[in-house]
Amino acid sequence: MVTLHDIHAAAARIRPIARRTPVLTSAGFNERAGCEAFFKCENFQKGGSFKIRGASNLIFSLTPEQLRNGIVAFSSGNHAQAAALAARHAGARATIVMPSDAPRSKIAATRAYGATIITYDRLTEDRTAIGRRIAAETNATLVPPFDHELIMAGAGTATLELLEEAPGLDALAVCIGGGGLIAGSAIAATETKPGIRVFGVEPALANDVWLSLQKGMRVEIPPPDTIADGLRTTMPGELTFPVIRDRVEQVVLVTEDEIRETVKYLLTRMKMLVEPSGAVAAAAVLHGKLPAGLRRTGILVSGGNVDFDVLAGF
Amino acid sequence: MVTLHDIHAAAARIRPIARRTPVLTSAGFNERAGCEAFFKCENFQKGGSFKIRGASNLIFSLTPEQLRNGIVAFSSGNHAQAAALAARHAGARATIVMPSDAPRSKIAATRAYGATIITYDRLTEDRTAIGRRIAAETNATLVPPFDHELIMAGAGTATLELLEEAPGLDALAVCIGGGGLIAGSAIAATETKPGIRVFGVEPALANDVWLSLQKGMRVEIPPPDTIADGLRTTMPGELTFPVIRDRVEQVVLVTEDEIRETVKYLLTRMKMLVEPSGAVAAAAVLHGKLPAGLRRTGILVSGGNVDFDVLAGF
Repeated sequence: MVTLHDIHAAAARIRPIARRTPVLTSAGFNERAGCEAFFKCENFQKGGSFKIRGASNLIFSLTPEQLRNGIVAFSSGNHAQAAALAARHAGARATIVMPSDAPRSKIAATRAYGATIITYDRLTEDRTAIGRRIAAETNATLVPPFDHELIMAGAGTATLELLEEAPGLDALAVCIGGGGLIAGSAIAATETKPGIRVFGVEPALANDVWLSLQKGMRVEIPPPDTIADGLRTTMPGELTFPVIRDRVEQVVLVTEDEIRETVKYLLTRMKMLVEPSGAVAAAAVLHGKLPAGLRRTGILVSGGNVDFDVLAGF
Repeated sequence: MVTLHDIHAAAARIRPIARRTPVLTSAGFNERAGCEAFFKCENFQKGGSFKIRGASNLIFSLTPEQLRNGIVAFSSGNHAQAAALAARHAGARATIVMPSDAPRSKIAATRAYGATIITYDRLTEDRTAIGRRIAAETNATLVPPFDHELIMAGAGTATLELLEEAPGLDALAVCIGGGGLIAGSAIAATETKPGIRVFGVEPALANDVWLSLQKGMRVEIPPPDTIADGLRTTMPGELTFPVIRDRVEQVVLVTEDEIRETVKYLLTRMKMLVEPSGAVAAAAVLHGKLPAGLRRTGILVSGGNVDFDVLAGF
């Protein structure tokens, strides 16, 4: 069970590598959304997403012997870059298992951080099994993308920073892939500021958590085809799901068009590049998916890694 | 003669409207540029560029009677938006004279701020004359884009903030259009930190200041065709030129390709949208145009207003 104390400990542990990202606002966005929005810009984070927070929290907790055996991670991209970066910082070898159709920029960046890349077919192969096999063969430590207490605690540090800069928030909107970011965020938010309302946002095409909450149990969906490539997980995590169930008021859904429009809005109006996955929380706020009456909403912008040619086609 | 005192006074005067923009860094950029770079991100400024600093410094200095008669400004875009925004904040009517081929986003944004827009043909008409005629007919106050002490002092406030956050800079790189930003920046920098080296950057296609420095006098060039639409001025200002001559070590030139490449680099690697004009200082640093041996260089990112379809064609 991740506690606020774990998240504060993570904040201290990851300080040598994770950046304190800026909190931006936009009068135009506020006018259109009908509330005051505070964007925690993890797209400006080292490695281009919040993922360095969780990956470095886990990797910096390893023993010298574990570090000598290296780490293995499987990821659609951002977690891969983060694990590679944190491993390099800690002097550990990194092997990263990535889907063969991950954005080229993410594969190239991960390789540039010195990691060994192993690709797999997202539709036919099981990345977890591949990662576990490599870990077993090499004694490397598996750094999972979300379903681990140190990963969740690390992810929650972004919300600590956000609440320091915008203490008057009455709500927080967070995207959901495997649920690591929202679980850590929800614990950080509700423990720091009891009464704050936490909302999760998923692409309608990748609604595994929304469905799971409806059914009261973890449900698996087929590999989803959303442009939000970081949110294509098929099932909530074993550890993340109970936190979401207990601390998140509601999960709302956004369409692919709403995600695309929000990416363009954030780019042309707020001048920041946000990847589709990173824009879903903002999309929900911009398109009125959250309950009426919220006054000051924190929006976690989870990342900004998107290929230029993909963006140009928007 | 603008003094450091004027710039500090400007900083206090414009506080109600101008944002304190973040200073960002990038390990990847540093590696490629061979120095530590600190980006003062005026692309995140209200109105999308540094221009609000000068425009509001002038407009907030007007008397109640002057405010009642409104203001007139002529501009390729960013100054237009800034003057319109500052005028609205001060409760003054704004008439803005813009080239008919200015980026559509800039014209639309200026109109959205409540200004009356008058367009002219950049190649055949004289915007200064049009602006002066309107000012004379309506008793409105002309808010020039750069050649005014209050505009220069306001522009200099960005550098005060940058030096507060990055006090160890040994150099500063600033783009040059009419010279208001670099004049204010050079005064702020050299008065706050004697010995700091200030470099100006122009597109090679719009080298009026570079030429003027060669000849030792203000030289006029034909309307330049650079993609850096904010830097298409044909001649340095009467007030800005002497400041540049006295305080700027060197003006260097960048090509159109270097500007384009830098816009893409800043977008995909640093996740921020910078307009071509706003990217020329970074382009000079990235492409080794400054003298060797600089260790910590401040880069003024002047703005981020660029149409999505223009960007997509890069």
